[in-house]
Amino acid sequence: MNKKGLDQGKPRPDAKAKATGKALYVDDIKFPRMLHGYIFSSPLASAKLEKLDIAKAKAAPGIHTILTADNLPGSNRIGMIFDDEELLVSSRVRMSGDRLALIAAETQLQAKKAAELINLKLQETPGVYDCREALSPSAPQIHPEGNVFKEFNVRRGNLDETVLSSDIIIEEDYEIGGQEHAYLETQGTIAVPQADDSWHIYSTTQCPYYIRARVSRFLGITQNKVRVFQTVTGGAFGGKEDFPDEPALCATALAKATGRPVKVIYPRKYDMQSSTKRHSMKIKHKLFATKQGQIKGVKLDIDVDAGAYAGLSTVVAERANISSVGPYDIPNIQVKTKVIYTNNLYGGPYRGFGAPQVSAVHEAQIDKLARTVGKDRIEIRRINGMSAQKRKFASGEELAQPHLYQELLNKLEKISKWRTHLQPPSRGNLKEGIGIGTMIYGVNLHWGGQRLDRGAAYLVLLNDGSISLAVGVTDMGQGANAAMRTICAAALGISEDLIQISEVDTDKVPDSGPTVASRATMSGGRAVIDAVNRLKPKLDKIAAQMLDCEDPGQVECKDGIYQTKSNQTKTVSFEKVVEELYLRRINPAAIGWYRSEPRQYDPETGQGKAYAFYAFGGHVTRVQVDTDTGRVNVLETTAVHDVGKIINYQGIKGQVHGGTVQGLGWALMEEFKLNKGKMMNAGFSDYLIPTSMDMPEKLNMDFIEEPQPQGPFGAKGIGEPSFISVGASVISAVSHALNQDLKILPLTPQNIVESIRKND
Amino acid sequence: MNKKGLDQGKPRPDAKAKATGKALYVDDIKFPRMLHGYIFSSPLASAKLEKLDIAKAKAAPGIHTILTADNLPGSNRIGMIFDDEELLVSSRVRMSGDRLALIAAETQLQAKKAAELINLKLQETPGVYDCREALSPSAPQIHPEGNVFKEFNVRRGNLDETVLSSDIIIEEDYEIGGQEHAYLETQGTIAVPQADDSWHIYSTTQCPYYIRARVSRFLGITQNKVRVFQTVTGGAFGGKEDFPDEPALCATALAKATGRPVKVIYPRKYDMQSSTKRHSMKIKHKLFATKQGQIKGVKLDIDVDAGAYAGLSTVVAERANISSVGPYDIPNIQVKTKVIYTNNLYGGPYRGFGAPQVSAVHEAQIDKLARTVGKDRIEIRRINGMSAQKRKFASGEELAQPHLYQELLNKLEKISKWRTHLQPPSRGNLKEGIGIGTMIYGVNLHWGGQRLDRGAAYLVLLNDGSISLAVGVTDMGQGANAAMRTICAAALGISEDLIQISEVDTDKVPDSGPTVASRATMSGGRAVIDAVNRLKPKLDKIAAQMLDCEDPGQVECKDGIYQTKSNQTKTVSFEKVVEELYLRRINPAAIGWYRSEPRQYDPETGQGKAYAFYAFGGHVTRVQVDTDTGRVNVLETTAVHDVGKIINYQGIKGQVHGGTVQGLGWALMEEFKLNKGKMMNAGFSDYLIPTSMDMPEKLNMDFIEEPQPQGPFGAKGIGEPSFISVGASVISAVSHALNQDLKILPLTPQNIVESIRKND
Repeated sequence: MNKKGLDQGKPRPDAKAKATGKALYVDDIKFPRMLHGYIFSSPLASAKLEKLDIAKAKAAPGIHTILTADNLPGSNRIGMIFDDEELLVSSRVRMSGDRLALIAAETQLQAKKAAELINLKLQETPGVYDCREALSPSAPQIHPEGNVFKEFNVRRGNLDETVLSSDIIIEEDYEIGGQEHAYLETQGTIAVPQADDSWHIYSTTQCPYYIRARVSRFLGITQNKVRVFQTVTGGAFGGKEDFPDEPALCATALAKATGRPVKVIYPRKYDMQSSTKRHSMKIKHKLFATKQGQIKGVKLDIDVDAGAYAGLSTVVAERANISSVGPYDIPNIQVKTKVIYTNNLYGGPYRGFGAPQVSAVHEAQIDKLARTVGKDRIEIRRINGMSAQKRKFASGEELAQPHLYQELLNKLEKISKWRTHLQPPSRGNLKEGIGIGTMIYGVNLHWGGQRLDRGAAYLVLLNDGSISLAVGVTDMGQGANAAMRTICAAALGISEDLIQISEVDTDKVPDSGPTVASRATMSGGRAVIDAVNRLKPKLDKIAAQMLDCEDPGQVECKDGIYQTKSNQTKTVSFEKVVEELYLRRINPAAIGWYRSEPRQYDPETGQGKAYAFYAFGGHVTRVQVDTDTGRVNVLETTAVHDVGKIINYQGIKGQVHGGTVQGLGWALMEEFKLNKGKMMNAGFSDYLIPTSMDMPEKLNMDFIEEPQPQGPFGAKGIGEPSFISVGASVISAVSHALNQDLKILPLTPQNIVESIRKND
Repeated sequence: MNKKGLDQGKPRPDAKAKATGKALYVDDIKFPRMLHGYIFSSPLASAKLEKLDIAKAKAAPGIHTILTADNLPGSNRIGMIFDDEELLVSSRVRMSGDRLALIAAETQLQAKKAAELINLKLQETPGVYDCREALSPSAPQIHPEGNVFKEFNVRRGNLDETVLSSDIIIEEDYEIGGQEHAYLETQGTIAVPQADDSWHIYSTTQCPYYIRARVSRFLGITQNKVRVFQTVTGGAFGGKEDFPDEPALCATALAKATGRPVKVIYPRKYDMQSSTKRHSMKIKHKLFATKQGQIKGVKLDIDVDAGAYAGLSTVVAERANISSVGPYDIPNIQVKTKVIYTNNLYGGPYRGFGAPQVSAVHEAQIDKLARTVGKDRIEIRRINGMSAQKRKFASGEELAQPHLYQELLNKLEKISKWRTHLQPPSRGNLKEGIGIGTMIYGVNLHWGGQRLDRGAAYLVLLNDGSISLAVGVTDMGQGANAAMRTICAAALGISEDLIQISEVDTDKVPDSGPTVASRATMSGGRAVIDAVNRLKPKLDKIAAQMLDCEDPGQVECKDGIYQTKSNQTKTVSFEKVVEELYLRRINPAAIGWYRSEPRQYDPETGQGKAYAFYAFGGHVTRVQVDTDTGRVNVLETTAVHDVGKIINYQGIKGQVHGGTVQGLGWALMEEFKLNKGKMMNAGFSDYLIPTSMDMPEKLNMDFIEEPQPQGPFGAKGIGEPSFISVGASVISAVSHALNQDLKILPLTPQNIVESIRKND
């Protein structure tokens, strides 16, 4: 673990401001005459709106406006991909937290008090709170088009008689829970109407360009009239992909109605209830194999609980669908993924984007196969997993670096001291176990989203040799700006200190697509390099002249000093070269651009080129399970990731630590307690996430650095991969400790105790 | 007067916000925790600082900090070209208004009250208040290097015996007064320290990039740490070129010391006393001619009163120097221009940049020549002025369009009905007269400033076909943004409504040089066209494919509709073409760039290529002079300008109206009443500028539109030309009315009455 990154070991650009508390999050920002917005929402998840009388509330002190579906100054239809959502309910409530009215007041408290004066009458209607029940023809239909609003398939090879009659058939039904994003900073926006009838929107978001598009659509104005400033963002994890558009629309509506700036900050409990979540899924997995443990085929049925509105659930399901057989080259595959409306929590993007759920399942099945045929769990993965010989992903495409999966297994085995932990000590009710989870991750957007797969960087050399860099991918706390700075400095051969970068301003950089799918480093980094490549030849040419060198190809800049490769004595500083560029009045700016190569893919069969390229990753987790209480104590984790190239060493460590611990939270602690779609444990007192006390004593990590030519300096992505295989490794470890097959996540004490009882 | 511009007749982008009072000027902007800065300054213009005790003031209520030269958190040396200025006086006061201390308080009033508690002791020292007296070796030396800090020359041909013995020699000494900019909005800045140790500066300015450079230098940080937002700017006229740096430095110093946002707004009287002014000049002009009125040579001595600090006076003097023989091709020229320190008001850029003063003089001399040789004043200009035969400017260079001067004279003569007014009625003490002034203006920066002569435009096509345009030249109220919008729309063939443009943000556009020298339309416009030229081929190619046309050269976009030139029935909208560009993920943004061709020039002789190209202009003014009171009533003005191409018709009309009336103010009313360098008539009650009551009854105008290939769509510039010849036409008219040669500006009642008395 001696690896270093491309970075210069400097603190992140945002380090000091965050450490000193000076960083301005959206709720820290104030504008003169700013009002505070409040969302009055439905406690019920399925109901008919019978009465919404705002007269008394309107007359309350400090109230400037109250908006309902009847007087909304913009379009009430706000669906993103499907036209299935209203900003304010006009007649039917579909989820607990559905917005009924928006209030703008001088203070938050006044708005909240006025909300208590609203005379609301809801007629509860039968709802559906289980995605499989929603499939029944007699189930209540959440939207007129039916509860299954999208299906995806993978059809590779043929599950014919030779497969179906395999010696080994392992069929199980899994139940995988959802997860709350639990970003430290809740959703929030300030909408500020401008004197020229344009709009400034300040938002904590991963995707400022989404907000620009939706606010302009809502107001019926062109997009150039909306400027979105991403504020310093306190965590996102997918929860600030599409969802921040909703608070942005609420604030905009109130600002439009009042002509004043309006701030909307979600209280934690409302945020938990109403914002998007990791999807819970019910997955039937049937695996066909030889006695030797060779997998011949799989059949999968994935039922995704999308909640009341489509949002981006189809996009998440698409990744779950194609990732569902993991890093295994399986000749015969049949997957059907259904995306299903219920009256539950609103499903959406979350670190891993559907992959963690399917990873937990396919890895558990692989483990069970190992046990069934009497092989070691790593050995069974060596046999069935990708390798120089087994190169094909579920989509049928051949991968460029399939051999890295075998390297991953080797490293996991070695670093975790796998073999020494296979017969763990067992002391009474305390059982130890070790488990493994592996995964494959298609970096960047799926074929279905490739039209968004672009990125821009705007680089300006200032005449003192300093650099202003703006990139269209967002730093949501993960350190993207540090990575962009590192890539820019490395590409120019200068100090990172010379580069200024900050949060995204949509007026500064062209729409770079959403910052999701672990694509920030790749697409932003490639755009930065492209920008440098547009400017560097100009600098090299000038430097060559200043160094009396005829061939600009012979000069290089290292640590801010230009030299010729042959004559190392003569030098000229980067700053002097830029100064000369200015004297010659040469354009000192460039817009770097990135787009992935267009791909072909058949959405009917899931065959074709699904992603730009792939990364492997895996976790080995050691646990101690208390069979009396069901409590799991994580002793040690080992994470290995195939990352192409480490850009920022501290950053990648942070990602692996964060992904691992967030994954442990999902796998062991985090659980929605729902009562007819209403979250009974909203708030951090009741919805438990890991604290420092829940950290494993040891977190090992290592990286595989075989450059991927499409990545900047060969880098892939780490944001999501760091999370995906944790759940699988926990199921594997607890199953090992208890010597039984677990088929549920999270493995809360209650779930474990129930499993033990069932098995007894 | 039927001409229309390139524009679409729409209101300016800023029209509604300004008309409704919604536009946010710098003083309208507030930040949380913002403090107010106040400048404690010297009443004396020449003094030694003996005591500056701030102890009592510091203890006053609401005071957060008081800065003096001793505790300034930045560099006190703030000279721009010459290192001759301190932000805060350390020991010697050189002008009235020199800053002694800076105070930051909760309110402006608290700061002002605290200032009264400062214990100040100044020892008055002998000053110099006349630029010719300053030339004397015995005069007090304002700075150690002597009072003449720069000289410029023009030496063309040879003032040899054949010239010096000319039949006609006209030698006069002229005294031309300065002028207050009288922008409606005084100087102001807000400096806001950022969480990441960078700075945001909000300023009313023409030149945000100057502020960026000087604030970074002051703080000792790189320029990428300073982001300057030009706020909606309420007039500038040159007064917001370099000077806004000073309030910006004051606010920055206070913000640095307190760690809080600080706003500094200049009170009107302090603004008038301390900010830069149009230079007063004393000019000796000696003209040599034949009996037929053919000019053989001129000898000029121009003494420029720069005030106490160099600022940009040398740059202004350089234009005065080379413009001093006007639109006349004179074979033998000898000009010496001295730039002189005094303890008077601080000279600086002002619409016309030294050209109005020399225009008033050379035109008066031409008039006198006409009278001496018995020719009509227009006729004498026809003989000596530029023409197809007489092509050379003072710099010896041949002009591309010298014939336009003759066209100008024809138009002025015709539109003003010149001949019908040559024998005006004279009723007792009311004498009428008609006068002419003409000028040549080198558009854009002089050779000496050509390294700044660059411009950038940042154009982004959004995916709904709307456009975000940012240009590095500023709109200071003159309508530059309207012109940029027009040029962009015309170049793309779309509606102006699709284009969003606003004030400059230095992080959005590369340093585009200063917005001065009537270069906004030219350099900004050229950059916009360049940006369009980088994007349009991509759009044309897509459009051709969508129109089934093989040759992209055959498609054109008009009024937002693409067609092929041959088949006019098939169409596709601009929006659809941009949408397709997005689907193909092609870079939708471009940085347009402009720089003028590098020029050669010998600063020793003033020979070479001084400017990129030239524009002519002229005014004919009719006046009625009351010989009893000396009051001049302007009856009618006629302005004709060679503008290449009209971009915005309303805009150019506004410029000509504004330039004419501001010129009349300078020529007739505006006067500094100085007592040892202190302005006794600061404030609009005492410093008089024209009101609607002073407008001439008739303002005629016309334009010559012969495109200049270097200008966007052939356009030149109008900002300064519209002003320059007004003063000359007023001297000419009053001299005609009184039948005597006037040699002074302004022609205030007092000056006129004194002239009449002297002549009697």
